[in-house]
Amino acid sequence: MQETEISTLGEFGLIERLTKNFDLKNDSTKLGVGDDCAVIKYDDDKCTLVTTDLLLEGIHFDLTYVPLMHLGYKAVVVNLSDIVAMNGTPRQITVSLGISKRFTLEHIEQLYAGIRQACVDYGVDLVGGDTSASVTGLIISITCTGEARNEDIIYRNGAHDTDLVCVSGDLGAAYMGLQLLERERVASKGIKDFQPDFAGREYLLQRQLKPEARVDVLEEMRQLGIRPTAMMDVSDGLSSELLHICKASGTGCRVYEDRIPIDYQTASMAEELNMNLVTAAMNGGEDYELLFTVPLTDHEKVQQMKTARMIGYITKPDLGAYMITRDDAEIEIRAQGWNAFS
Amino acid sequence: MQETEISTLGEFGLIERLTKNFDLKNDSTKLGVGDDCAVIKYDDDKCTLVTTDLLLEGIHFDLTYVPLMHLGYKAVVVNLSDIVAMNGTPRQITVSLGISKRFTLEHIEQLYAGIRQACVDYGVDLVGGDTSASVTGLIISITCTGEARNEDIIYRNGAHDTDLVCVSGDLGAAYMGLQLLERERVASKGIKDFQPDFAGREYLLQRQLKPEARVDVLEEMRQLGIRPTAMMDVSDGLSSELLHICKASGTGCRVYEDRIPIDYQTASMAEELNMNLVTAAMNGGEDYELLFTVPLTDHEKVQQMKTARMIGYITKPDLGAYMITRDDAEIEIRAQGWNAFS
Repeated sequence: MQETEISTLGEFGLIERLTKNFDLKNDSTKLGVGDDCAVIKYDDDKCTLVTTDLLLEGIHFDLTYVPLMHLGYKAVVVNLSDIVAMNGTPRQITVSLGISKRFTLEHIEQLYAGIRQACVDYGVDLVGGDTSASVTGLIISITCTGEARNEDIIYRNGAHDTDLVCVSGDLGAAYMGLQLLERERVASKGIKDFQPDFAGREYLLQRQLKPEARVDVLEEMRQLGIRPTAMMDVSDGLSSELLHICKASGTGCRVYEDRIPIDYQTASMAEELNMNLVTAAMNGGEDYELLFTVPLTDHEKVQQMKTARMIGYITKPDLGAYMITRDDAEIEIRAQGWNAFS
Repeated sequence: MQETEISTLGEFGLIERLTKNFDLKNDSTKLGVGDDCAVIKYDDDKCTLVTTDLLLEGIHFDLTYVPLMHLGYKAVVVNLSDIVAMNGTPRQITVSLGISKRFTLEHIEQLYAGIRQACVDYGVDLVGGDTSASVTGLIISITCTGEARNEDIIYRNGAHDTDLVCVSGDLGAAYMGLQLLERERVASKGIKDFQPDFAGREYLLQRQLKPEARVDVLEEMRQLGIRPTAMMDVSDGLSSELLHICKASGTGCRVYEDRIPIDYQTASMAEELNMNLVTAAMNGGEDYELLFTVPLTDHEKVQQMKTARMIGYITKPDLGAYMITRDDAEIEIRAQGWNAFS
């Protein structure tokens, strides 16, 4: 039998290959694989959104520098962010855990304290799950259901030529937070009572350890009467997500390097670590900001936004996806986002 | 800090401890943790049911004797069975996978062939998931959503004194199938081109490797006009599930040893392995049959059922839960069901 290493396909190639033979059979299944959430429609008015994330110790998190409470909070938020990215309201989660012998009840209670805090902060109910021993490491699988009126749902495939490309918050800080934690972990090796040095980098840590789902961005858009044509959350990195929207919508895009929102702490950390700042912001991932497109006619409304800014525009597909640098060069955007299989 | 080993609590103790501080906040959350599925209500007529299962290599399955295609099928069916156990219709699944380096694309395609077959057989749509590398072993997390009219949903807590206790199909065969597979695995060690001996045991293998969700039992009950007062599926073993229904309903029960449905192959295998047959049937688990209670007035209707039979009755709570043996002794029913943490 032919043997194909999964790493040669990557996550998206693998999913495409595996799911291509699955036909949708139920009237209630409005959208299957391929967006932030699945969309299930049971009545004329509302839809149920469904999304799920699997977090594995040693792949997605390292407990030597992530406190269990933060991990629990983040594991919930990354799911909520997918519901928000469809313009829905998260309502329920299920939490499944695989727990190896090195974890005690008190450890798992810390994890649940974080899960509970996220449920309280976002008004979400824990409604089920499955709990088991694992051979090795901690396994967290969370599924989130949300609610949206049919006409409110925003997909990835609605961007059109001349639409404006916008992103909320700032990018690259979560990635720089991870670099910082990793640096301090290495520095701590063999040193008893090591005190990590995080002074002046609190924002980076917060972005890595306690990300938030940008419900406030949806709220501001509603207040300003902005209705995005396409939207998704930035989990794998801006480059990767831009290409997702362009592919789904059948368009190209241009984004301006000097418009990419970057926090001062991110820039300062990149300099200290001698890393390329724009690469970190474009490909870092885990920002959980909202990337969205709006009609050109919403230009003035977008300029009023406090939570998001315009970074470029959508083009016809044959123009490709490029970043325009500060010196007016065009660099092709490639998905260098995080790949668990590499 | 106090350290409590999770094995001292067991799965249900752990879940109870972890989820007790979670209040339900959303109107749409009709039922949270504690039944086969969560129940989400978005309109006056219908509910969405949600259930999830986490299957871990080395804990729930052993790939030395379970073909990947069967594993994929079973991983879906165990979820569908939970929807069926609430008297709902399964509609959508999400599939999340953690895949270690020893698996190739072709392996995962076999797994998906089984997942696809279950989707086809039960008319269910694959709508999403999350796919990642894992450090070690195969991880499968499936969530299933289903549909039910509000008045059709059957919970665990509706059993009343004098209700009849019924179970579909037969019990213990899946467990004996596992014993058989394990015996042949041990026998095969060090032998090249080993041919396992499964002659006359095909039913046991089928029950272990390719269980089904008993949609047909629901259909027969509808035709006969039977409406169970309480229902759940038998995944951990009849003893464990009887106690769940009694606890949730605030009742006791009596079941007759000589009424427990057992297939000939199960009995023959138990004899060959010198194992207690009733213990296997009461505590074996993985049968995915339906355990349900009906009002005493449905006695004659139940007797007409081809897919299920009466095995006992519900009592007042102070009478406890007992099995009445062939020689009229009463043995207390204890949950000796499968515990991943032991």
